[in-house]
Amino acid sequence: MKLNVFFTPISIDELYFTHKTTVVIDVLRASSTIVAALKNGAKEVVPVATVEFAMKVSGGMFGGQTLLCGERNTKKIEGFALGNSPLEFTEKVVKGKSIILYTTNGTRAIVKAKFSENLFVCSLENLSAVAHHLVRLNEDVEILCSGKSNTFSLEDSICAGKLSTEIMKTKEDVELSDAARASVSLSKSFGKNILKMLQETEHGKILIGNGFNDDLKYCSKLDITNIIPYFSGNALKILPNNLEGESNKNKTE
Amino acid sequence: MKLNVFFTPISIDELYFTHKTTVVIDVLRASSTIVAALKNGAKEVVPVATVEFAMKVSGGMFGGQTLLCGERNTKKIEGFALGNSPLEFTEKVVKGKSIILYTTNGTRAIVKAKFSENLFVCSLENLSAVAHHLVRLNEDVEILCSGKSNTFSLEDSICAGKLSTEIMKTKEDVELSDAARASVSLSKSFGKNILKMLQETEHGKILIGNGFNDDLKYCSKLDITNIIPYFSGNALKILPNNLEGESNKNKTE
Repeated sequence: MKLNVFFTPISIDELYFTHKTTVVIDVLRASSTIVAALKNGAKEVVPVATVEFAMKVSGGMFGGQTLLCGERNTKKIEGFALGNSPLEFTEKVVKGKSIILYTTNGTRAIVKAKFSENLFVCSLENLSAVAHHLVRLNEDVEILCSGKSNTFSLEDSICAGKLSTEIMKTKEDVELSDAARASVSLSKSFGKNILKMLQETEHGKILIGNGFNDDLKYCSKLDITNIIPYFSGNALKILPNNLEGESNKNKTE
Repeated sequence: MKLNVFFTPISIDELYFTHKTTVVIDVLRASSTIVAALKNGAKEVVPVATVEFAMKVSGGMFGGQTLLCGERNTKKIEGFALGNSPLEFTEKVVKGKSIILYTTNGTRAIVKAKFSENLFVCSLENLSAVAHHLVRLNEDVEILCSGKSNTFSLEDSICAGKLSTEIMKTKEDVELSDAARASVSLSKSFGKNILKMLQETEHGKILIGNGFNDDLKYCSKLDITNIIPYFSGNALKILPNNLEGESNKNKTE
């Protein structure tokens, strides 16, 4: 099995992902928000690459069943129902709803990888579940870090490194690209105190400055769920073959 | 002083570099080739971003005084005088000549950063000289890794980390971006045995496969020269204010 990491989606063309197995990571905060929404009973999360497309998609759906959500520069977009804080996506708010989600980095990365054969979303909270599923799949994996405005983000690369490390715990013949080797190394150097690491990243500091310190605490939790968001038919749903995922899926449909 | 690193030139627009102090790194091999050419008496190195432009520039100059050099996929371009191996750029071959250089990653990165207020080229062999000059300048620094076809390259990031570390030895109030912190960490993890590290990178393996193992040995040497290539008027020359640079400059003009 080969593991490769891209530190930013701009490095690569969307056609590259055709026939690939891809994992998109956006630790702060889209990955966690998507997992939170699905965990709390959202029917699906539709990731979109532009605000305009978010409004267009939302406009074609029936009111009440759809929530238009997203952020620009960490803050909720005016007129949208929710921002991009996982804490907003409670069961009361999202249960049974289709979530249309636009975020500066994460949802754009997912849309870029849309031609993948298998496309999953990973955050720290479902990291081991994703790793174990990838081991079962036994395909080469492209880990796509959402990054920060087309540049490197430390927290995503560390999550990529932790994911790679978790895969290598149960899989022996893993071949790492340069970027994957770097991620593993960075996860060892910076990954011991995750909350502290998040608070010291560029993105973490901006979020704290905008009052989202509780989001950092939420996003720092490791392996608290088995839910794996899976992209199919332009929407993310809970991967049905995953154990906890299956039970949640039944709950929401 | 702020230090920032870009792992690939595609992350950033060329106008970003206006008024900036920038260091371009391409360990394998453009940085070393440029240093070698200037060290051995080349009048200047003109970095170009396309093969077509290389031929156009070369055509407008007088034969004999100009050498058209460069590589595609590590190999010399057909019809060009030299490839991109620093070992080819001997005094006998390059003395007094204008070198027109096209390489897949390095010269394109230099051209991208052409609007910089100060633009230097760094490799392992002149790393401390560049670091000391940057400390003297005392400006914020953008370190631009040439990368590999728009993606991450381990050797460039490690060189960026070593450069940052060297700066921090004599400068106290250095502020590192996420990518700069990552580079420093990677240089600590992978930078002990440089030749081994180069041989184990993706690019290093390709070069070895194409018979360039001696280039890796050459490019692995740390701090063997004080020459700093400086971009001015569309060409790289030896930075005049640098001590060893000055003596070499006088020698070549």
